Amino acid sequence: MTSPDGLLGSVQSPADLRRVPADRLPELASQIRDFLVTKVAKTGGHLGPNLGVVELTLALHRVFDSPDDRILFDTGHQAYVHKMLTGRQSGFDSLRQRDGLSGYPCRAESEHDTIENSHASTALSYADGLAKAYALKGERRHVVAVVGDGALTGGMCWEALNNIAASDRPLVIVVNDNGRSYSPTIGGLASHLASLRLSPGYERVLERVKESLSRTPLVGPPAYEVLHAVKKGLKDVLAPQAMFEDLGLKYVGPVDGHDILALESALVKAKRFGGPVIVHAMTQKGRGYQPAETDAADRLHGPGAFDPETGKPLAKPSAKWTSAFAEELVKVAGERDDIVGITAAMAGPTGIEKLREVYPDRVFDVGIAEQHAVTSAAGLALGGMHPVVALYATFLNRAFDQVLLDVALHELPVTFVLDRSGITGPDGPSHYGIWDTSILGVVPGLRLAAPRDGARVAEEFREAVAVDDGPTVVRFPTGSLPAELPAVERLGDGIGAVDVLRRDARADVLLVAVGSFAHLAMEVAERLAGQGYGVTVVDPRWVRPVPSHVVELAAEHRLVVTVEDGVRAGGFGTAVVQALSDAEVAVPVRDIAVPVGFHQHGTRNEILAALGLTAQDVARQVTGWIAGVDSDHAGTVGTPTGHLRRPAR
Amino acid sequence: MTSPDGLLGSVQSPADLRRVPADRLPELASQIRDFLVTKVAKTGGHLGPNLGVVELTLALHRVFDSPDDRILFDTGHQAYVHKMLTGRQSGFDSLRQRDGLSGYPCRAESEHDTIENSHASTALSYADGLAKAYALKGERRHVVAVVGDGALTGGMCWEALNNIAASDRPLVIVVNDNGRSYSPTIGGLASHLASLRLSPGYERVLERVKESLSRTPLVGPPAYEVLHAVKKGLKDVLAPQAMFEDLGLKYVGPVDGHDILALESALVKAKRFGGPVIVHAMTQKGRGYQPAETDAADRLHGPGAFDPETGKPLAKPSAKWTSAFAEELVKVAGERDDIVGITAAMAGPTGIEKLREVYPDRVFDVGIAEQHAVTSAAGLALGGMHPVVALYATFLNRAFDQVLLDVALHELPVTFVLDRSGITGPDGPSHYGIWDTSILGVVPGLRLAAPRDGARVAEEFREAVAVDDGPTVVRFPTGSLPAELPAVERLGDGIGAVDVLRRDARADVLLVAVGSFAHLAMEVAERLAGQGYGVTVVDPRWVRPVPSHVVELAAEHRLVVTVEDGVRAGGFGTAVVQALSDAEVAVPVRDIAVPVGFHQHGTRNEILAALGLTAQDVARQVTGWIAGVDSDHAGTVGTPTGHLRRPAR
Repeated sequence: MTSPDGLLGSVQSPADLRRVPADRLPELASQIRDFLVTKVAKTGGHLGPNLGVVELTLALHRVFDSPDDRILFDTGHQAYVHKMLTGRQSGFDSLRQRDGLSGYPCRAESEHDTIENSHASTALSYADGLAKAYALKGERRHVVAVVGDGALTGGMCWEALNNIAASDRPLVIVVNDNGRSYSPTIGGLASHLASLRLSPGYERVLERVKESLSRTPLVGPPAYEVLHAVKKGLKDVLAPQAMFEDLGLKYVGPVDGHDILALESALVKAKRFGGPVIVHAMTQKGRGYQPAETDAADRLHGPGAFDPETGKPLAKPSAKWTSAFAEELVKVAGERDDIVGITAAMAGPTGIEKLREVYPDRVFDVGIAEQHAVTSAAGLALGGMHPVVALYATFLNRAFDQVLLDVALHELPVTFVLDRSGITGPDGPSHYGIWDTSILGVVPGLRLAAPRDGARVAEEFREAVAVDDGPTVVRFPTGSLPAELPAVERLGDGIGAVDVLRRDARADVLLVAVGSFAHLAMEVAERLAGQGYGVTVVDPRWVRPVPSHVVELAAEHRLVVTVEDGVRAGGFGTAVVQALSDAEVAVPVRDIAVPVGFHQHGTRNEILAALGLTAQDVARQVTGWIAGVDSDHAGTVGTPTGHLRRPAR
Repeated sequence: MTSPDGLLGSVQSPADLRRVPADRLPELASQIRDFLVTKVAKTGGHLGPNLGVVELTLALHRVFDSPDDRILFDTGHQAYVHKMLTGRQSGFDSLRQRDGLSGYPCRAESEHDTIENSHASTALSYADGLAKAYALKGERRHVVAVVGDGALTGGMCWEALNNIAASDRPLVIVVNDNGRSYSPTIGGLASHLASLRLSPGYERVLERVKESLSRTPLVGPPAYEVLHAVKKGLKDVLAPQAMFEDLGLKYVGPVDGHDILALESALVKAKRFGGPVIVHAMTQKGRGYQPAETDAADRLHGPGAFDPETGKPLAKPSAKWTSAFAEELVKVAGERDDIVGITAAMAGPTGIEKLREVYPDRVFDVGIAEQHAVTSAAGLALGGMHPVVALYATFLNRAFDQVLLDVALHELPVTFVLDRSGITGPDGPSHYGIWDTSILGVVPGLRLAAPRDGARVAEEFREAVAVDDGPTVVRFPTGSLPAELPAVERLGDGIGAVDVLRRDARADVLLVAVGSFAHLAMEVAERLAGQGYGVTVVDPRWVRPVPSHVVELAAEHRLVVTVEDGVRAGGFGTAVVQALSDAEVAVPVRDIAVPVGFHQHGTRNEILAALGLTAQDVARQVTGWIAGVDSDHAGTVGTPTGHLRRPAR
């Protein structure tokens, strides 16, 4: 672990920072940017957002006294600079690696971290709660929430603003407005800011602001007043102010988010105000690093390892799960006019961008607003379209009620494509896509597919959009596509058909493998076969509802083992147990899945190994269970669903 | 079934309505109100909201051409008048009764109904989707969403408004502003309206508006212009307009929501506008029925059967599940300063009102904003408080992600009290509280209690708020408390302790009964005992995680049957199967629960009977399964988890 020398190295705490003379702050900011580019180029991580908040974070830690005052970062990937200023510079060599520094705030790392959740739009609600608690306890502590303009498109922010505005408790909301979240920020509010920022007039204003500031003293109200005066002359800039003040929120800004002293001045004013106040800071994503500043496709938002000179990725591009979906989506859209795409500010990462390139009128980016994504899809379906809503699996949790009541209750044909399902990796616990199969299992009429390879992504997506009487889901993991895994036999047709991937002469164990775990199951089968057991491996393809062919296959075996990359509680395994029970098929079932828990960051393979989801571990478990079934036959207690009947071989 | 005669009886469709001369509309409105009061007094139902929208609904159906134009009612309980105007007057005798008229829009009833979901704040998202679909298909159909001011506090509305405002598609949003949803509407936006409406000035303005209107022609723009002119003079009324227009939404209003012609004029203007537009109608909840107009506690929002002369309920008050919780909450709050209450616009129905009466500073009503309710509770917990969030079970679905990541990931002590869990009744599919146990089952560290009677509500609530390292949930059904059901034996202490309610000398069947189903299980046991089986009945008290005592009891029996009033997929039964599996306890388990599906309205008992959840039906099923276990012993396939070991008796 290496720490930088010099000015940056001397700042290991907010107290250190407050001792840095004001005239050396630009130098510090520059060193922070060099550090970020150098480190993230090696480890990968979130770059663009952090380059944009260097000065803002410096100003926050100079004005407020963390951890006594609480600084809450919404969408925690903008907290790298905060980590650097709170004693964690040496950790950046292990950023996002197993047992290394988390890519998000993490309370185990530092008393300066508060919210670990990296889902957007939550910080204002936390802040409201904290401010209420301090008020009740009579504690005079400041609460500051830093929220991006993109996160403001999420409904939670509105709910929070509506409550905060009605109170008189001190609370500082810093809007970090870079005009784009992942994608350019969407919507009515954003359009005011966006049009302003993109127009030549905006550039001229910024120039004027900078000139004015350069002629004013370095510290204190005058700089702010100048900014304020300039703002007063701009009708468009008044729009957000009017809106926030209509709600009863004091508004300060806009402030140049790369002018530390202007920021400090605004924050001091906000801190002294004594009620809820919004500070509107205008920042530039990727600021100070040419490849990120000019990165129209936003590839340096959260890159893997890259060449720091050029910003180009080091890894060679490979075929991705996402691409397999995106290519098929474009094909299907070419055949069917009713197919439309919906994304929640993630057009690129979910592949919806490919559809937009070909059919721009048929793609709707709704902002970071999963609830609206789902229910506006329901509306589109009511109007005769077949919407494809592409989300990360973890973000569908935001719209469970909408899937249940707005789509399923109305039996509307909406297809959800869940990227990054199952075990993800370096983004840590809040990005795991392990919850979907369980919670969607209660949704009446919902059909859920888990393709095992790229060819099956295309096939099962086509089956999904052919359904016209209720929601369908296609889920797949992140990363590169595995090798294609052909079936030796297909039982049935369409939804409900299952692929037998291996069938031995003897039928001891049936491995029912969900999605990408088909490959794991094939390795497990190899090991079991080496011990003399006869193994069948089946990919159910559609896991909700449980295909009847799985039940029929189960009846021919001595033991059924389900293997899935979702959480065990309420998982596919429990559905198989119920399906066998209902069919009066008395074969013991064991379910292998992700344990209920929050799992840490690391590579996908490291996490799988830590959870015992390797071929070696699974094979060992299955061997033990078969022995249990056999010993149960001899009259002892071996397996919970132990059963004596041994099918004819 | 009776239909009214005269004017009202002659209006059986929107076309009929459009033929009514304008000067007879007040008479029609009056007949509608009489009809509503008379009918709802007999059946129970939603009264106050519907009395408030009589003129608005008349105007909507005169200006727009349903079903070609689509009128979407947010929070569908305000759709009674709409039902009356679309051919369903004769159905009101069977309102909310099994196989009778639904209390919400219902597509099976009428082509004029579109959204069946009665959760608030969804209509704008549906409308946005519909408008997109019509635009893509080149269909010129109008989309109108009617949304209450209360529902505007929900984040979904913000997400939708932000998208609608950014578009140029025609879409009419009618804000039905009565200044209160269930409770008085909360928040910054509402405070503008509320202060205006509650002030004497507002009354004077309304008077002035009425005078002006009485001097202007009955139809056409002038009335609107007068209203508009009056509005212009009122600074406060301008506030919402400014806010909506900041977002890019055209604003028309405010309009007197009880002046049909003014409403028609405003709606015609909005219809012609050709882009997104808000019509702000000010209405009075309970309008025209004295007991409802003066109903400060809002008991006539959705009453049971009542005396139409006085508005007083016919049924005698009885001890309720809600009261058992509310009384204990007040006691605990008296002992502990850190206890605070949170409600989402339902202080009365959830019992939080009782806490507010005693400790007004320690209750937070956040509006119809479940996401903010949960995450601001997380913030309060971070600040050292122990929040109690009281919601209907069905509405927690709105905040699943917040429970998972904002509370559980942070291991914060927040107690959720879920009222109306399990089978509810006349409110139909979207109000069933059957999903909670399954979806909460995946939340790491979450503990969930299901008390069986009033004494256990108090006891388990106390155990819940004693937990300091993660979320706890206490769920109970709606209605009157059952008789107290004492335990014959308690195994263990605190969370994890289980109550044995019955234990026979023989141990054939273990019935594990969740919550209020303990009473059902006792009846089932009686029937089984009559057939010679030995039955143990246990109340697990805490159903997540499965108490180890349940596993130990299971090992002593030949068959375990779980009985729960939640959905079967991922339910308590599946957790028991996994717990036995993990403990290597090989006893067959059968789970009786609510089938995955959307179930219709009716009384709780009617629904339970329809689902086979009666003592008679359950006993019959269990008898069959025991026979299966026995025959399985003889070597045939009888039960899915059949097992030979017969414990010593």
